[in-house]
Amino acid sequence: MESKVITMKTLVLVSHPKATASATQTFLKTSADYLDDVTWRSIDDLYSATQINIVDEQKRLRAFDRIIFQFPMYWYTSPASLKQYMDDVFTRKFIVAKHWLKNKELGLVITLGDSLADFQAGGREQFTISELMKPFEAFANKAGMVYLKSFIIDQFGYLDVLKKQELLVSYLQYLSAPMPLSLEKREKWLITRLKQLEAGKTAQQRELLDLIIDSIDSRQDQIDDLKLNIKMIRDQEE
Amino acid sequence: MESKVITMKTLVLVSHPKATASATQTFLKTSADYLDDVTWRSIDDLYSATQINIVDEQKRLRAFDRIIFQFPMYWYTSPASLKQYMDDVFTRKFIVAKHWLKNKELGLVITLGDSLADFQAGGREQFTISELMKPFEAFANKAGMVYLKSFIIDQFGYLDVLKKQELLVSYLQYLSAPMPLSLEKREKWLITRLKQLEAGKTAQQRELLDLIIDSIDSRQDQIDDLKLNIKMIRDQEE
Repeated sequence: MESKVITMKTLVLVSHPKATASATQTFLKTSADYLDDVTWRSIDDLYSATQINIVDEQKRLRAFDRIIFQFPMYWYTSPASLKQYMDDVFTRKFIVAKHWLKNKELGLVITLGDSLADFQAGGREQFTISELMKPFEAFANKAGMVYLKSFIIDQFGYLDVLKKQELLVSYLQYLSAPMPLSLEKREKWLITRLKQLEAGKTAQQRELLDLIIDSIDSRQDQIDDLKLNIKMIRDQEE
Repeated sequence: MESKVITMKTLVLVSHPKATASATQTFLKTSADYLDDVTWRSIDDLYSATQINIVDEQKRLRAFDRIIFQFPMYWYTSPASLKQYMDDVFTRKFIVAKHWLKNKELGLVITLGDSLADFQAGGREQFTISELMKPFEAFANKAGMVYLKSFIIDQFGYLDVLKKQELLVSYLQYLSAPMPLSLEKREKWLITRLKQLEAGKTAQQRELLDLIIDSIDSRQDQIDDLKLNIKMIRDQEE
């Protein structure tokens, strides 16, 4: 079971009219390239290149365990290209009658220009991201998919190197680690990933790998601290 | 003030990939044709005809008091064409910096294939239409627009003649009557409309007009009954 989950296949469907000009999308694509079981696909490129082949797309989707919609938030939802893809490819037959996406996972990777703190009651944007993404949650319900917690990146441009490094690890986990991500699962996932990453990488990739390992070490320290705290609390209770 | 409101200009932006083949959209368009101050515009026709002229669109929008997004619900929001229009025409400069749509009204006319009763906690669709339309409400907030109650038409195909007749009157009111629609405002609006409709109509139009008048009469009877009930309750309280 665990070993199956660790090798899960993930499809990232990016909806962004100018993805190659976006620093955030470039960062995420570079990160995702480390994972062999992640397939990256630009919806906008797909539509600009040729007439979309709906049957091919449906076949492709069926081969994945986790499907990620990744997009910058435009007017409180995805850009139009993702909606076009959904309108075209997610026919009622495919989603409702045949239930082909049933039990697959649906995740959203959302980039925000504004601060996440603005998205709450009393905040400038008034509504939470969970509220604004209800149509996607409703779609997951209809399709019988498992709706994952959204992965939100706000104000990428303001992140320092350390924050970007943490973001990279969290993002790779979001793409490919089993959910929900318990500490135990996280450790297993990291070990598997590190083993895979050891072999056949370029110098540049190894440099980034060092960053990841540093990040894991600092996280591991945090985890150990937490475990110690929990033990102390339990001891006091007895 | 009141007379200005009664002559408000309304733009209906229809998002529907096959509007002319839709019985519901055809019915609504035929209805809206009775109102001189309503402009009807198909976003899909706009995009298929030519390259969209963003500056022209923005100028057009500024001339209206009420803007209606009208669409069948596809995967819990509008079809992609409305989102494309929003992404293209609603630039941050136009909406946020210049605030050109400020104080205008935004209404949604949503047609549903499923029953409206399915859209609630515990229902088949789990979420309410208000919840699913949050992105539009958030947009209205950002634009400084007045967000109107949505006008929802569920299962149009099952409506009998009487229900269609009631729908027609309610729809015309939604497009052009002042909101919120008090009984007094409703009466004023109806009188204004009837006067306009008396002159220069074809036989076919007069036939439909008779239907409307019948509907108004039956509504007026309901209103009179309600007023009588309220008077009785008040009399008992004294």
